[in-house]
Amino acid sequence: MYTSLAFSFMPYKTILSPRASITTQDNKNATVYRTKVSRNPTMEKLQYNYLFPEISEREAQHAKKYPNAKIISLGIGDTTEPLPDVVASSMANYAYSLSTRTGYRGYGAEQGSKDLRKAIAETFYKDMGIQGAEVFVSDGAQCDISRLQMLFGSNMSIAVQDPIFPAYIDSSVIIGQTGDVEQGSGRYQNIEYMRCDPHHNFFPDLSKTARTDIIFFCSPNNPTGHAASWEQLEQLVKLAQENGSIIVYDSAYAVYITDGSPRSIYEIPGAKKVAIEVSSFSKIAGFTGVRLGWTVVPKELLYSNGFPVINDFNRIICTCFNGASRIAQAGGLASLSSEGFKSVMSLVDYYKSNAEILLETFESLGLKAYGGVNAPYLWVHFPGSNSWDVFNEILEKTHIITVPGSGFGPAGKEYIRVTAFGHRENILEASDRLRSLLL
Amino acid sequence: MYTSLAFSFMPYKTILSPRASITTQDNKNATVYRTKVSRNPTMEKLQYNYLFPEISEREAQHAKKYPNAKIISLGIGDTTEPLPDVVASSMANYAYSLSTRTGYRGYGAEQGSKDLRKAIAETFYKDMGIQGAEVFVSDGAQCDISRLQMLFGSNMSIAVQDPIFPAYIDSSVIIGQTGDVEQGSGRYQNIEYMRCDPHHNFFPDLSKTARTDIIFFCSPNNPTGHAASWEQLEQLVKLAQENGSIIVYDSAYAVYITDGSPRSIYEIPGAKKVAIEVSSFSKIAGFTGVRLGWTVVPKELLYSNGFPVINDFNRIICTCFNGASRIAQAGGLASLSSEGFKSVMSLVDYYKSNAEILLETFESLGLKAYGGVNAPYLWVHFPGSNSWDVFNEILEKTHIITVPGSGFGPAGKEYIRVTAFGHRENILEASDRLRSLLL
Repeated sequence: MYTSLAFSFMPYKTILSPRASITTQDNKNATVYRTKVSRNPTMEKLQYNYLFPEISEREAQHAKKYPNAKIISLGIGDTTEPLPDVVASSMANYAYSLSTRTGYRGYGAEQGSKDLRKAIAETFYKDMGIQGAEVFVSDGAQCDISRLQMLFGSNMSIAVQDPIFPAYIDSSVIIGQTGDVEQGSGRYQNIEYMRCDPHHNFFPDLSKTARTDIIFFCSPNNPTGHAASWEQLEQLVKLAQENGSIIVYDSAYAVYITDGSPRSIYEIPGAKKVAIEVSSFSKIAGFTGVRLGWTVVPKELLYSNGFPVINDFNRIICTCFNGASRIAQAGGLASLSSEGFKSVMSLVDYYKSNAEILLETFESLGLKAYGGVNAPYLWVHFPGSNSWDVFNEILEKTHIITVPGSGFGPAGKEYIRVTAFGHRENILEASDRLRSLLL
Repeated sequence: MYTSLAFSFMPYKTILSPRASITTQDNKNATVYRTKVSRNPTMEKLQYNYLFPEISEREAQHAKKYPNAKIISLGIGDTTEPLPDVVASSMANYAYSLSTRTGYRGYGAEQGSKDLRKAIAETFYKDMGIQGAEVFVSDGAQCDISRLQMLFGSNMSIAVQDPIFPAYIDSSVIIGQTGDVEQGSGRYQNIEYMRCDPHHNFFPDLSKTARTDIIFFCSPNNPTGHAASWEQLEQLVKLAQENGSIIVYDSAYAVYITDGSPRSIYEIPGAKKVAIEVSSFSKIAGFTGVRLGWTVVPKELLYSNGFPVINDFNRIICTCFNGASRIAQAGGLASLSSEGFKSVMSLVDYYKSNAEILLETFESLGLKAYGGVNAPYLWVHFPGSNSWDVFNEILEKTHIITVPGSGFGPAGKEYIRVTAFGHRENILEASDRLRSLLL
């Protein structure tokens, strides 16, 4: 049984220092011209470099140190399997048709093509009363989260799960909704952190959750891989109703749910009046590099003055965005066709099988791993340890990239996140290497 | 000679009313559930619906009224000619390769591929000292303008040309940099409007321009089609240096310049320390539906505290964006190849010939038309008239869509903007119809 990782090597002390201070030092040379424009104080509040570029940087450093090592990435959650032929062909045909007089198209509707909006509504929101006109096609969920922050503005109070994908918090800091970070806890003032850990079945104690305007909620959760149950989501909607809050529900991994838990917040009665849903083709159809997602804003969702949120979101989309690439939209539509959807769901199954292999691996090491059943992520507990140390040690000993849990919030400090995206042979090799830690 | 348009039909009074007030009325039904979330007050400041969706709406209404009319759009500046084969094929091949094990790619760098960044630097900024690492690939200039506003934040003061493409002002309002709109003038408080009209060769009187943190400047200007001269841009850079301001220079139409005027702000000595440049493949390569652009942030550009703007912009790109579609990037790279660039520039020439035809047409009508030489836009003066009335009358009498100048700011109220994008036969037919106004 695995007992402990020896923290024998030097931590990369400088890596987590904000680049700010380093670079500012360099520029204290009085001869360098500076504008008289003040740096945005909200940008100054951001504490660390953005998590995933940071991990890429560490991977590059490791590759330099061990030029012959075969690094396996179980880090950034990035799809690895080729697109189904029907999807790739549809994009190829669409792209090629742009060279013909009859096939050429210029600007599309900022909100996305009607066909695609309708197909999204029918595929993912059947019998939930969501119309195509309430679906806004985007270039990805992360981009839409920032556009939602522009929509909301700096006066909103927000709640987030802890741990959580960092884009919600970072975009909240940038738009000016937060105070400074509290040293020690690493938490920003004016954000309500909803602790989600195994003791509470990865759901917050809502009796202790302060009222906020916006509640960001991601299910299946990134990083924990936990899919909220019917009962949990009913509680969440009830909380929003009682508090008059708006839920921003991130369902980017919903197609990985196979245990019968809800795949959309709109499966919960009453949710259309209190929730926006953000989602993506990235992990459904392998579109991480193609870039396509969507956001649902129901017409029934109203601000306190009765003004429909959808009208303002439409204005944001028309002013700050110009539509997703038409080629990507053609691919999205193909992936929702009968043949296409079957094909992309078989890729989802493939990644779910990877997750099973990894779950068994960590269990064989005597480690507790959560998630991995309804999600392509495992959340592995290393009690009493520091997640960046665990990240470093796994990398040093096995040449495997993971993600340190503390990158997702204070509640992640004893965890690492492991992705199930990968070629099967790499997952199997990673499994062997991890098991060898025991030897 | 053309003397006057009779304003004989009813203006569409309601169309310019903010949807806000209409819909709010509808929702005063007390039985409708409302959240307790306040509408973002900055969104409430936006006065009108976004210009181009509004024009699309009017076009749809006209088509309904005259179902047999062949409407010709000289309105939204949207490319119409098929992509060069080399460009479309590169995207088709790239898209298809995503269905192969060796060709599949997931997430790319948020900043764009190194190859493309390098190609942009070498094609457009040769001998200006701009490196690929200072080029950030995006999904379009409009999107990057909003990301720049997130970067700057609500405390910045801004200046804009008047008239100007509305995205700068609208995104400034949304991010909270402005006060309310002044009824009558239609101008927002806290924005410095730099009047650019024929009397001053479409360049502001800088001696009367108040100091602002940010100066948005678009050249060739959309809508006037004026390309700023060397002398004008030298004055602009000098102003930024004296005031410690940052210029955000929009060069989306720069490839249309053929009179020797600068195509980049970085042609002006010293500009790298005071300017960001935003640009796009939309009007270079016909990518309005493909979605690809870029922003240059030179390393030398520093905030007052010495912190490099590029570091914060990089953080914005990593947090609020996830890279342009890899397929679009493949197309962008192909369009900058030797064969590709020659092909796309022949399309630029095609549109410039359209502009010549339209210039002659308006001149034959005795109207003064500006632009059209270094830009795909004409800015046509109708002295003493109201631009929405002119828009309506041209539409009613000729079934031609234009853009009312007042949509670009108060200085545009006697103008319409006419685009030179279009199939040649449509441009010729539009020319005939316009000439018939004389008969």
